[in-house]
Amino acid sequence: MTAYRSLKVALLGAGSVGSQVARLLLEHGDELAARAGARIELVGIGVRDVDAQRDVELPRELLTTDLARLAASADIVVELLGGIEPARTLVLDALNAGADVVTANKALVAAHGPELFDAAERVGGQLAFEAAVGGAIPIIRPLEASLAGDRITRVMGIVNGTTNYILDLMHREGATMEDALAEATRLGYAEADPTADVEGYDAASKATILASLAFHTTVPVEQVHREGILDISAEVVQQAERDGRVVKLLAICERLDGPDGERVSARVYPALIPGDHPLAAVHEAKNAIFVTAEAAGDLMFYGAGAGGPETASAVLGDLVSIARRHVIGGPGLAVSSHANLPIAPIADVPTRYQLRLAVADRPGVLAAIATILGQHDVSIEAIEQHVADGPTASLVLGTHAAPEGRLQQVVDALRTHEDVASIDHVIRIEAQA
Amino acid sequence: MTAYRSLKVALLGAGSVGSQVARLLLEHGDELAARAGARIELVGIGVRDVDAQRDVELPRELLTTDLARLAASADIVVELLGGIEPARTLVLDALNAGADVVTANKALVAAHGPELFDAAERVGGQLAFEAAVGGAIPIIRPLEASLAGDRITRVMGIVNGTTNYILDLMHREGATMEDALAEATRLGYAEADPTADVEGYDAASKATILASLAFHTTVPVEQVHREGILDISAEVVQQAERDGRVVKLLAICERLDGPDGERVSARVYPALIPGDHPLAAVHEAKNAIFVTAEAAGDLMFYGAGAGGPETASAVLGDLVSIARRHVIGGPGLAVSSHANLPIAPIADVPTRYQLRLAVADRPGVLAAIATILGQHDVSIEAIEQHVADGPTASLVLGTHAAPEGRLQQVVDALRTHEDVASIDHVIRIEAQA
Repeated sequence: MTAYRSLKVALLGAGSVGSQVARLLLEHGDELAARAGARIELVGIGVRDVDAQRDVELPRELLTTDLARLAASADIVVELLGGIEPARTLVLDALNAGADVVTANKALVAAHGPELFDAAERVGGQLAFEAAVGGAIPIIRPLEASLAGDRITRVMGIVNGTTNYILDLMHREGATMEDALAEATRLGYAEADPTADVEGYDAASKATILASLAFHTTVPVEQVHREGILDISAEVVQQAERDGRVVKLLAICERLDGPDGERVSARVYPALIPGDHPLAAVHEAKNAIFVTAEAAGDLMFYGAGAGGPETASAVLGDLVSIARRHVIGGPGLAVSSHANLPIAPIADVPTRYQLRLAVADRPGVLAAIATILGQHDVSIEAIEQHVADGPTASLVLGTHAAPEGRLQQVVDALRTHEDVASIDHVIRIEAQA
Repeated sequence: MTAYRSLKVALLGAGSVGSQVARLLLEHGDELAARAGARIELVGIGVRDVDAQRDVELPRELLTTDLARLAASADIVVELLGGIEPARTLVLDALNAGADVVTANKALVAAHGPELFDAAERVGGQLAFEAAVGGAIPIIRPLEASLAGDRITRVMGIVNGTTNYILDLMHREGATMEDALAEATRLGYAEADPTADVEGYDAASKATILASLAFHTTVPVEQVHREGILDISAEVVQQAERDGRVVKLLAICERLDGPDGERVSARVYPALIPGDHPLAAVHEAKNAIFVTAEAAGDLMFYGAGAGGPETASAVLGDLVSIARRHVIGGPGLAVSSHANLPIAPIADVPTRYQLRLAVADRPGVLAAIATILGQHDVSIEAIEQHVADGPTASLVLGTHAAPEGRLQQVVDALRTHEDVASIDHVIRIEAQA
């Protein structure tokens, strides 16, 4: 057996991902050494509570609650704590002390990416975060490297497994949002407090990271327009099925060309997509990222977006890659944000709406409503009138693309229109020719 | 504007991919410089005939027929000649002279990968070949880096667009093989001599590369079991549709555990897959690679597997990545083939067969045939008897998994059996639970 040099790895966090990383490092040490050209030696696992119950039994002697001290002893620090602090300080300190860093922390990379990238570049350190988006799916490296010579125009991803599970269940079983959320919670797909998932915060963090990498710029997470899925009713899902569409929570990163030059948009919201779009076939808690680039055309990356072993796979990929570079020498590749593109406000972003209205069931109503859309320069793509049920008729309107701001004005005007009893749903339409 | 240092790039070959690489380099020079941290200066384009007609008009002063001299002047050589020689010599000479190399040449990497990898590693040079498999689809880097910490068990890919187009057409329009091939030729999906595609040679080259990377070993292309698609009849496609399946030409790379330890198998053949498998939704000339790893689970990479601009995207991604590393310093990462796994002969590989037989329409025939399968320890999974048409009845048999050798013995025994008038088709079944 080859005698390899040893690289000291400090693991910060032993939750569902961390404990799997530890297990795989301990079980596959020889094979990983052969691939990395160095023995990846787990020197310690930083935890909050040494005695906590864990899925995987970890060697007691590796556990410590002194995370800073552990990190300071390592060649490579693997940060799997989640959240901003103490993760941010530990990662920055590790980089500044000359260690390389692997993190799966999307919230940290989304909120403090530029600071971390700068720190890594300044010292020539490696910083890898493949697990921060799409779990096991390789998407960071393809964006950073494989597509580095192309001009990405759009990234559209299902990047949150919990909400995809819920929406998929609503489609498959005709469940209400309430029931689907309860089922997702029961099965462990949703956390006790599902806010980060169902309100789109998790997806927004990922949109920030994807947009920043795809467009070589910085997209602050606060500038990601974000809407959650809780307003999606069983009726929206039924209407989608009638139209051959599917409701998905999408993270959309887009390059917009306009009279003022190039801008980017990053946004998260539930939207209708055609049933034959590749993203429509992404079921249960799976993730997929659909990338469109000028030369490459359409690409899709599909797989498990979460889960302990799945996310651990991405972390270990980063770890082995970093170890290989560590062994042969040379600094880490910097993340380039040279393009420095302005962010388009959501009001400027062209989208398409589907509206469902309850309208007075009398002649001339359709004309009145069409006039309102015309006044805001929004053209109608499809209209469907349902048989009246009582004094009102149900009207489903699909628009052509128009700036969000104008579409919102249409909604506001309809809301106060005398012939409109109620607006039953408003949902965007994406990926439609 | 930042003043960047300049890296000299020699482009060898100006076919459909090369001319697009040249165009993109010339059109997007500033943007690529900002990403790479160096100006990627196209110093020359090596061609066979300076006066040949090309899709893209190239600056006359860049064209040269002296490829060796051009390559010798460059920091990075981009080899897009295809075929073995002179590509191999030019690439080896470039590496030995200290240049980095990008190639899209699957035949070269498949036939001489280890020699090229060794040469690059010896001098610390970079060798990148993302475009050699799956065109625009990032698959090389995910296998080499993102999944470097995982244990890949299976790679199953649609890696040849021409054959996928033909089989897809047979499904969509009920066309015969002859008509579908003619249509693919007419539309430019198939070349005048389609042998490399329809006989599976192209897919076998890609299987070699995928298996070698996925399993960290060397799989010689001669040891890839290869069958083409020409025997696929309209009847096979019809039977597939009745069974809810799809016929695809697959490149399958598999890790096999057995009493003699671990072996690998790489093979190319048309097979039936379930209609709800993600690969079944890969239409026209698209490619997709489905990867299964122990921790990551199932992943899929989807996109354009060929085409000038699409493949150029992958070449440019490699070029920018190589330029970035060139600028900051450090050797290229070596391709690891430490595992050195034996190749399992096809006879040992467990597969499943579907057989369609014309059998004598008399009592006891079914029992006689079932006995033959039983004698070879092959168990039947499904059996379907069609109404007799004349003196023979049509029988469709599906087997459970058994070693190929035994399945072949069954076919041989049936072929000579007195009750079997003919064997109308034999096709494998893959990806079925």
